[in-house]
Amino acid sequence: MRNPRFVEDRIGMKYGAGGGAMRALIEQIFIGGLGEVGDGGVGLAAMDDGAVLRVGDRWLVITTDSHVVHPIVFPGGDIGRLAVAGTVNDLAMMGATEPLALTCATILEDGFARDDLERLWTSIRRTCEEAGTTIVTGDTKVMGNGELDGIVLSTTGVALTDRFVGDAGLRPGDRLLVTGTVGDHGLAIMATRHELGLATSLRSDVAPLNALIRRALAVGGAGVVAMKDPTRGGLSSALHEMAGKSGVAIVVDEPAVPVRDEVRAVGELLGIDPMLVANEGKAVIGLRPEIADAVLDAVRAHPLGRDAALIGECVADRPGAVVLDTGFGRRLLGEAEGELLPRIC
Amino acid sequence: MRNPRFVEDRIGMKYGAGGGAMRALIEQIFIGGLGEVGDGGVGLAAMDDGAVLRVGDRWLVITTDSHVVHPIVFPGGDIGRLAVAGTVNDLAMMGATEPLALTCATILEDGFARDDLERLWTSIRRTCEEAGTTIVTGDTKVMGNGELDGIVLSTTGVALTDRFVGDAGLRPGDRLLVTGTVGDHGLAIMATRHELGLATSLRSDVAPLNALIRRALAVGGAGVVAMKDPTRGGLSSALHEMAGKSGVAIVVDEPAVPVRDEVRAVGELLGIDPMLVANEGKAVIGLRPEIADAVLDAVRAHPLGRDAALIGECVADRPGAVVLDTGFGRRLLGEAEGELLPRIC
Repeated sequence: MRNPRFVEDRIGMKYGAGGGAMRALIEQIFIGGLGEVGDGGVGLAAMDDGAVLRVGDRWLVITTDSHVVHPIVFPGGDIGRLAVAGTVNDLAMMGATEPLALTCATILEDGFARDDLERLWTSIRRTCEEAGTTIVTGDTKVMGNGELDGIVLSTTGVALTDRFVGDAGLRPGDRLLVTGTVGDHGLAIMATRHELGLATSLRSDVAPLNALIRRALAVGGAGVVAMKDPTRGGLSSALHEMAGKSGVAIVVDEPAVPVRDEVRAVGELLGIDPMLVANEGKAVIGLRPEIADAVLDAVRAHPLGRDAALIGECVADRPGAVVLDTGFGRRLLGEAEGELLPRIC
Repeated sequence: MRNPRFVEDRIGMKYGAGGGAMRALIEQIFIGGLGEVGDGGVGLAAMDDGAVLRVGDRWLVITTDSHVVHPIVFPGGDIGRLAVAGTVNDLAMMGATEPLALTCATILEDGFARDDLERLWTSIRRTCEEAGTTIVTGDTKVMGNGELDGIVLSTTGVALTDRFVGDAGLRPGDRLLVTGTVGDHGLAIMATRHELGLATSLRSDVAPLNALIRRALAVGGAGVVAMKDPTRGGLSSALHEMAGKSGVAIVVDEPAVPVRDEVRAVGELLGIDPMLVANEGKAVIGLRPEIADAVLDAVRAHPLGRDAALIGECVADRPGAVVLDTGFGRRLLGEAEGELLPRIC
């Protein structure tokens, strides 16, 4: 990928923002000498949503995330739902829609309220049920008062699948589908932090997508060639990564990108483009053109996919670029790289 | 297990200490409705070192831990080595000595030094090599200055095995083996914190034990009936858990428990029993009596097992108790439950 920049002496907030700075950190410090997997699997260097390992005649998909969202309860969800959905979705983005199990390591700040912890674990339980999975093992640590802000949940998911889907399989002519409105999670969190009156109408979209993706795969089969959930960095980062890794450019039909009116309004108020902020219940799916409409219909038939749309197309020119076609002209879509929204997930 | 006590309104340090308070927290808040696995595997309710799931005709073992040790670099190791070894050892304690892969989620405090991060990842790399495994996927988050004390690493390990070993398989007559001296990690950390002059001679024992355990299993076969690594809560907690889950009492031959002279000396100075503090490169192994000596010889032949000893025996009376035979008399061995050593691992 394109990260000539050198990681600075001090790791600042932008290195956790899901953009170019974070990729540079991973490439320059984490990857070297680690993460090679054989047999055509997916290892650390691929920087995909998870890893894929050969197990017998199937693939074991594994993915991990730490969750540090602030506030821990927000309109539409909480850190427990976010942890489960985020992990289930990362598995689903690799084509593994039936999670075998999750793990959850909990770190608490000394003095964390028992009632709050119970509520979060009730939410974890419900989201697991919704996704058809469970938590099979965990870990508990407590840090001193002032050593951790509240709670951190680190979840890992494993799943077996006969076929996996990466995020680098696009070629010119392929279509891009987004499963619903963009920017909901990021702007809901942002509005909460700014204590905006408008905040009341915004809700995070956090949800497990595995059932939705199962439908898309059932209809699209091998025509589903790339998937990514547009979390940190939003739709823009997801498209940039997919374009960069696939060696194509993506032309986005801007008017086709679904954005809720209130999300657009709050975004304008705060000066934030909804395409640059996190989603926690959406997927971007790369499709061969011949099955694109059929997959769109299948996704729209699912409650979490009602607002799905085909938003763009791959072209051979300018590999790695994401071009926004506004209807009046074309411009390059930028990628958030800074600390736009720290602790968004 | 025996946890009638009710978790308090605020989660204090003792709930992360690996003893009775932590078990009460897990039982009362985390487990309900979660973690059931079919086919004779091991789920959340077993509260073992990890979970075991049926995959085809083999078992998939999965284990997770967050690492919050302070200081992050200590005599004999650092948080990176601790994270890898801890995860490899939890897999090994279930009988899975060939890790398929690890994951590592890194959370940094804003301003963390790049050089320190590089050193920790060099250590991670080396420890992975030592254990014959690698990190296949990860995650990076950054929290604000003052929101996290330095760095947290959350690691998960997966491994396949034909046979797994739990921690509840003891019966009267079985022998207990410890693979080396106890208390080294806990007292090394403790001495560092107290800035004792004596600290210079103490070193953490942190090391991956999978090769050692492989030897024990090769020699002991089905006669290896229970394993546990005596981390938080030390040898005492490990023995209490094994005794409680197996429904036996364990009589410990106190003079046989290997403790380094300097560990004993610092323990006396600080008023801390080495049997109550964490180890990060030791295992407690339950053995059928007929193979105990052969396994002891095999373990001693490994560099990490030179000080191994048979330290006790299971009896039917008083199930769950751990009895210390001092050579002059017998007394119950207590279990640390409080905040003896916060952030020890």
